[in-house]
Amino acid sequence: MDPKTRGDASSRGTSETAPKKSRRGFLKQGAALVTGAASAGLAQKTSAQSLAGQPWERVYGAGFTGYGQPSRFEQPVMRHIGRPYGDLAPGSGATLAPIESLEGIITPSGLHNIRSHSGTPDIDPKEHQLLLHGLVQRPLKFSMEALWSYPMTSRIHFLECSGNSNRNLAPQPAQVPAGVLHGNIACSEWTGVPLRVLLEEAGLMPQAKWILAEGADSAHMSRSIPIEKALDDALIALYQNGERLRPQQGYPVRLLLPGWEGNMNVKWLRRLKLVEAPAMSYYEARTYAQILPGGKAWQFYFLQEVKSFITQPSPGLALKGPGFYEISGIAYSGNGRISKVMLSADGGASWAQAALQEPLLSKAFTRFRVPWNWNGAPAVLQSRAWDDQGNVQPTRAEIIAHRGVAARVPNVLGFPSQHFNGITSWAVDAKGEVRHVYA
Amino acid sequence: MDPKTRGDASSRGTSETAPKKSRRGFLKQGAALVTGAASAGLAQKTSAQSLAGQPWERVYGAGFTGYGQPSRFEQPVMRHIGRPYGDLAPGSGATLAPIESLEGIITPSGLHNIRSHSGTPDIDPKEHQLLLHGLVQRPLKFSMEALWSYPMTSRIHFLECSGNSNRNLAPQPAQVPAGVLHGNIACSEWTGVPLRVLLEEAGLMPQAKWILAEGADSAHMSRSIPIEKALDDALIALYQNGERLRPQQGYPVRLLLPGWEGNMNVKWLRRLKLVEAPAMSYYEARTYAQILPGGKAWQFYFLQEVKSFITQPSPGLALKGPGFYEISGIAYSGNGRISKVMLSADGGASWAQAALQEPLLSKAFTRFRVPWNWNGAPAVLQSRAWDDQGNVQPTRAEIIAHRGVAARVPNVLGFPSQHFNGITSWAVDAKGEVRHVYA
Repeated sequence: MDPKTRGDASSRGTSETAPKKSRRGFLKQGAALVTGAASAGLAQKTSAQSLAGQPWERVYGAGFTGYGQPSRFEQPVMRHIGRPYGDLAPGSGATLAPIESLEGIITPSGLHNIRSHSGTPDIDPKEHQLLLHGLVQRPLKFSMEALWSYPMTSRIHFLECSGNSNRNLAPQPAQVPAGVLHGNIACSEWTGVPLRVLLEEAGLMPQAKWILAEGADSAHMSRSIPIEKALDDALIALYQNGERLRPQQGYPVRLLLPGWEGNMNVKWLRRLKLVEAPAMSYYEARTYAQILPGGKAWQFYFLQEVKSFITQPSPGLALKGPGFYEISGIAYSGNGRISKVMLSADGGASWAQAALQEPLLSKAFTRFRVPWNWNGAPAVLQSRAWDDQGNVQPTRAEIIAHRGVAARVPNVLGFPSQHFNGITSWAVDAKGEVRHVYA
Repeated sequence: MDPKTRGDASSRGTSETAPKKSRRGFLKQGAALVTGAASAGLAQKTSAQSLAGQPWERVYGAGFTGYGQPSRFEQPVMRHIGRPYGDLAPGSGATLAPIESLEGIITPSGLHNIRSHSGTPDIDPKEHQLLLHGLVQRPLKFSMEALWSYPMTSRIHFLECSGNSNRNLAPQPAQVPAGVLHGNIACSEWTGVPLRVLLEEAGLMPQAKWILAEGADSAHMSRSIPIEKALDDALIALYQNGERLRPQQGYPVRLLLPGWEGNMNVKWLRRLKLVEAPAMSYYEARTYAQILPGGKAWQFYFLQEVKSFITQPSPGLALKGPGFYEISGIAYSGNGRISKVMLSADGGASWAQAALQEPLLSKAFTRFRVPWNWNGAPAVLQSRAWDDQGNVQPTRAEIIAHRGVAARVPNVLGFPSQHFNGITSWAVDAKGEVRHVYA
């Protein structure tokens, strides 16, 4: 994880081409995402123009391989592994995407977040079947060969654990990389069969209002899905970023419920049972039901709401002296498209609009960027997102006021709060170090 | 590579819900990509509804890992490795994406095509520098730390070797998987610094009309780039599908010239020299200059023109009996967006319009799909694409008439023809086997 560093801050670009500061150092932007002025001064002037090569330019390179891997120099870029039960259950817990090291909107499949309850099963697709039964006219069994032959659709969607970011409710701000705080999320291109197609083939009975979706892991992870979502944009996902699903994301088949909490997107899907009412599975009755301040369980609230956070800079990525930086981050909403992201460098006192990277896709990551001229004084960076359904990202204080911090029902994961989508604050001190603060 | 198979073709869906055939079996489509009717009949009816689990449901699964990999059951999905010089030069030649096994528009980075002349160098980013020199006001050197700190932009673009698909000019149609015929191509989300930004910082001299771009591989692969493209949409690419570039795609930095032939997107970029005229490098003077029928070299034609091909079904993926199939493939154009793809099942005598998967992006893959009701008679499948600049994909015969087959200048790679973008034909025989034909 390379820090955001700067070369020769005294070089020409900064002194001659720097435009006037506006809005606490944010540069006004037109249609273009970047301007030369905002970036100048990072290169070194050179008169040597040496063309002498490096050692690797003098030897024949590595041969072809059937499946490529990252550079050995990128080994530090790994998922953050959380194993609350240690060696007792090495595949139970969460493993988080290193969002502080990633760019764009596609998460490479190897760095996709994982949340699982009993590890990753080793499924032979020739033996795996999907059963569609319960309140249907015609119970059906689908081999993987059959599923792979159905008409498909492809969409880019984020997938977020409902517990993502709940460390923001800890009494003191956690000093961890952005990926440890917010990385229980990823965004991929998913390809699969619309669930609606399979339900139409089976024929729904009128009283079929919910679907129990069950995985083939040893926990038999299961959740109840309202029929409206199943008939809307749910996918029986078979491919992830162009290739078949990875085992850690549900190979050979998972449910995809765009914009809804991650655990409902049941991995290693083995059956869908049409039922009249929620099954009140272990997971929906206990694990994914937060106790609200009044003592009531907050159940069956599925949506991952509008949210954003800054990935660069972020804790662990220090600024090296005053000058121009690009602030960049991710925004998304389970309700639709991101319509606006505002940035503050003074803890929310004033705001400037960020540029949004196209294409703007529904229920997908949107990368935002804004050039910032840091004058060297302490600053508090925040991002706040809006979606095209009129929703706005709340503050941390607003969330706590409405939902509490659920600290009274501790579990082994520590912070059982769900659906935290509040504003996150990064403080930059005069030395350029970045810390997580509550502001 | 699993064949497209069908389950119980006699089941209810096919007999009761099949709409009438139109246009040689293609189904009319509305806005939706898929219809239940088109897919019915692949599942097995079941009365057993057995919930008995598989062995992997009874054991605790695998633990977390820092970087995920595909399932061991997907081992057959590998790139097609071409090594024309064998062990003498194991990284010279081309390694092709298995497009017959892929879906959507993102190519996983591990399966990205490779074309290289002297293998993949093992570059330490702390030692690598990019030199910007020649006809500039201020020669500049960029460390990777500096480049990683510039304002960035992200775009999804295809990258195609100019020699891709030239086996279509062989005297007899090659009976190989679609990836061996057309897989010297991939599509990724690229993130990097607009080249324009660096050129503005260096300051162009008026006589700077071309740029010599040179790689840090031991071949020092180099090409001349017109300044207009450099100032338009060229990127200094640093990230691929969210993570840093893979070594085989140019780690730590490559040039990206959207829509232009692959070899100009110089990998392992070490310098950009502003010059007055093309440098007439070895690669542009010899390797990537096709001799036309009149004896003239076809040089400095950079564009990868509008093109499409069917990936499913394709040779090696047999149909199992009459019934409904989804025909799917890829279309793209170096000129802009795909506006239309037409499908034929009778070798071009009649055509039906395919559905295009959104979002429709400029200079990127577009996945097309059309449901087809195969009646069991022999058929010849073709796709033909149009782009939003009014260009239409030519036939194979049209290309040969204009450009010849370049067979008179053989090199070790066999078919030195460049920029083949003609229509490809897959013949389906009465047994459902798929063969490459010239039609």
